[in-house]
Amino acid sequence: MAVKCGNNTIMLERPVHIINAACIVGQKEKEGPLGQYFDRFEEDDFNMDTWEQAEARFVEETYRKLLSETSGINEAGVDCIFGGDLLNQCMASAIGVKKSGRPYLGLFGACSTMTESMLVGSLTVDGGGAKNVVCITSSHFCSAEKQFRFPLELGSQRVPSSQWTVTGSGAVLLSSEGEGPRITCVTPGVICDYNVTDTNNMGAGMAPAAASTIMTHLADTGRSPDYYDMVVTGDLGSIGHALCKDILKLHDVNVTDGLYKDCGMLIFKPEQETCSGGSGCGCCASVFSAYLYRLLKEKKINKLLLVATGALMSPVSAKQGEPILGVAHAVAIEN
Amino acid sequence: MAVKCGNNTIMLERPVHIINAACIVGQKEKEGPLGQYFDRFEEDDFNMDTWEQAEARFVEETYRKLLSETSGINEAGVDCIFGGDLLNQCMASAIGVKKSGRPYLGLFGACSTMTESMLVGSLTVDGGGAKNVVCITSSHFCSAEKQFRFPLELGSQRVPSSQWTVTGSGAVLLSSEGEGPRITCVTPGVICDYNVTDTNNMGAGMAPAAASTIMTHLADTGRSPDYYDMVVTGDLGSIGHALCKDILKLHDVNVTDGLYKDCGMLIFKPEQETCSGGSGCGCCASVFSAYLYRLLKEKKINKLLLVATGALMSPVSAKQGEPILGVAHAVAIEN
Repeated sequence: MAVKCGNNTIMLERPVHIINAACIVGQKEKEGPLGQYFDRFEEDDFNMDTWEQAEARFVEETYRKLLSETSGINEAGVDCIFGGDLLNQCMASAIGVKKSGRPYLGLFGACSTMTESMLVGSLTVDGGGAKNVVCITSSHFCSAEKQFRFPLELGSQRVPSSQWTVTGSGAVLLSSEGEGPRITCVTPGVICDYNVTDTNNMGAGMAPAAASTIMTHLADTGRSPDYYDMVVTGDLGSIGHALCKDILKLHDVNVTDGLYKDCGMLIFKPEQETCSGGSGCGCCASVFSAYLYRLLKEKKINKLLLVATGALMSPVSAKQGEPILGVAHAVAIEN
Repeated sequence: MAVKCGNNTIMLERPVHIINAACIVGQKEKEGPLGQYFDRFEEDDFNMDTWEQAEARFVEETYRKLLSETSGINEAGVDCIFGGDLLNQCMASAIGVKKSGRPYLGLFGACSTMTESMLVGSLTVDGGGAKNVVCITSSHFCSAEKQFRFPLELGSQRVPSSQWTVTGSGAVLLSSEGEGPRITCVTPGVICDYNVTDTNNMGAGMAPAAASTIMTHLADTGRSPDYYDMVVTGDLGSIGHALCKDILKLHDVNVTDGLYKDCGMLIFKPEQETCSGGSGCGCCASVFSAYLYRLLKEKKINKLLLVATGALMSPVSAKQGEPILGVAHAVAIEN
């Protein structure tokens, strides 16, 4: 049974293991610094007719990959799927999992959806309501550009603070039995509004939320940052990462670049010209599933605080002058 | 601690009370058959500049109303908010709750979001991770028409199978302590694809999902429909309601019109010219919060199966030929 700890953090009492993880990414992601960890990539969008259908297919294939590579679990063994993405009405997730025949609970936390799904999923497993839960998210560079920014055919110039939406899907299988790193506690985030209205600077929109959730987590648990081997935010990119560090420092929380990483900075290298770095629900999902999960499994790290970050905005809200609302959800994962 | 029961149903073992409910609706809803139960309505959209901002304000004011009318709870006592709506990137919910300062977990289940939030919320309370949880959803006729259909200024004709999106927001406060009807078990729904592509007939798109969840719930629990005093779907409207009854009958599950109701049929009367009835996340949310919750509190009914229904589709998915995917989540509420 879970127990509230401090203001917002919840400690899980029963074991919730991440028994497996899977991801499929696009070619650009494969060519990045983590390329060796991505054991499957797609260069032709599965030959689908549209980018949206391609994104849904990334979800479908990642779900299938996750189950096929996990021994002792078949499709009927999945009690529940928690999923979401950035597309309007979260269509990639719904289409992607529709053939599963398993209960589906859709989430929307923008790019924070991966840890949101792990947070809600782990509480469900801890509470006894499910034995095996799949958490899955996705994003696609082209479907995101089309929906949030400009038609790709325009070839619009990108500003240095912009980020490159990761093409890919990542998924984890949480279970009350089996082996693998455990989700030991979770900190759901509050919405932070710093009146950032520049939709080309999502990092600035999300950094206060990341800092807020990290500080709340540390205060609630009485831990210092170096309790963890790594603290990793979702997709702040280089600008948001620096801002988050600055905000933490203002509050006397000091983290080194060795300890504190960002998935958006890990997934691409500067020569790939992604400006401030990677973004999208698929960023944290694929970096965790392929890379961080492996570090945990191989015991190269033993304590990870994963904090996916979301920019809650839409093209309509931006045009109506609404600020970008940041939210970040943290899950502590330990061997 | 929750216990899995049958294929998909989860029985809650600890008390999860709905200690209060609140809603605010628009003028047309106030003029409907349930008008006397809506103790607050807005005729001028809070004088907001845009429909989207008005919808967010409905959420904000409903949240405030819920807390102000619940004794023994202040804002800091809310452990978590589960919310969602139909707008792209669920902006009404995010903007509506941003001032709360409480952890926010966004959901997207289209019009099934109200019972989705009650399902996930009740599991969180049952599991010990939260003592008090707010579940809140909204919809707005004008913002939905603008986003999903045609500019209102066109004055487009409506087909008889179309539905009228409810303007309003509804919210409930779940708590492990206190009094009020209890959520005793929940059945998360699977996605049903019957290849319905007519976006003017959402009832047909959702009816198979409603029937599927109701049948799964009954099979999992070993109950017959008349275990309940009322079985109420979210927003199938008159066409979807008839279809759902037909599908149930095909599977030897017989429900009378006295037992089985639909929120979309309850909220408007035929003279209001809403074609097949009401729809939107705000439909089930407001009908439950204002009317069904009162019936339970006054013990006019003692066992309710509430099954909100969602049509997972977007204008883009529809244009790309994707079918409307139905999903329905059930919560059993008992005195």
